[in-house]
Amino acid sequence: MMKKSLMDDLLAAAHDAAKAGDVPVAAAIVAPDGTVVALESNRMVRDGNALHHAEILAINAALAKTGGSRLDGYDLWVTLEPCAMCAGAIAHARLRRVYFAAYDAKAGAVESGIRYFDHPSCNHRPEVYGGLSEQAASIMLSDFFAAKR
Amino acid sequence: MMKKSLMDDLLAAAHDAAKAGDVPVAAAIVAPDGTVVALESNRMVRDGNALHHAEILAINAALAKTGGSRLDGYDLWVTLEPCAMCAGAIAHARLRRVYFAAYDAKAGAVESGIRYFDHPSCNHRPEVYGGLSEQAASIMLSDFFAAKR
Repeated sequence: MMKKSLMDDLLAAAHDAAKAGDVPVAAAIVAPDGTVVALESNRMVRDGNALHHAEILAINAALAKTGGSRLDGYDLWVTLEPCAMCAGAIAHARLRRVYFAAYDAKAGAVESGIRYFDHPSCNHRPEVYGGLSEQAASIMLSDFFAAKR
Repeated sequence: MMKKSLMDDLLAAAHDAAKAGDVPVAAAIVAPDGTVVALESNRMVRDGNALHHAEILAINAALAKTGGSRLDGYDLWVTLEPCAMCAGAIAHARLRRVYFAAYDAKAGAVESGIRYFDHPSCNHRPEVYGGLSEQAASIMLSDFFAAKR
């Protein structure tokens, strides 16, 4: 039940990001004991920084909070399949598991595109669980981009 | 001549990083008019953050300085072939050119490994110039890791 409600919290945070003009994506870092240590949404528009994806902000917030330089044993939850930059960051941070909602056939880099964690040059492969709450996350993204047109 | 001396400055900054315990890598962002707007070295050890690669720090410093959310028309110079995370960040920032020194057969993602900019899922391909001052950069990295053993 914890896991279901965390993705619901992320979908709500993503919805808030969209209301502020950002592409609706949110991510959380969960400690081995189940504590949510960071929850961030995509802030590219609000921060004026093309690197401020939800996953990067969540990893940096979790590192600041835990005081470690990596997040061994921690899990990442995110409403959209991570891109190449974020997949690389996930490997560098040594996250244990990645749970994501919507697949991103265009820019995704986990189960789509470069499939980074499956490549021999990737030095850390987390366990990956894709497609959780996919429908809700996909519809939110489609609505966001439809409204932009 | 400007370009030659910039890579020399980066090799010197990378050398200083190594003296502080960080893997010797440094990166700069150059404006279309040739101004160096950011010069950063790898600070993973000093900052206690596995994402603090020189390229990420240089892009963020340049965005803060220019006030833009991307770096269209700007160039990145770096002493080591960028990894997947940094290649993704380079594409997101829309950098015009990437100049790098040493090739990284193990974790590089530009001319090695996933060759991210050549992949159809990459939405922006910068011009790439690899192998500049390669010998100097490679020797510095080899010395650093030899001293660690």
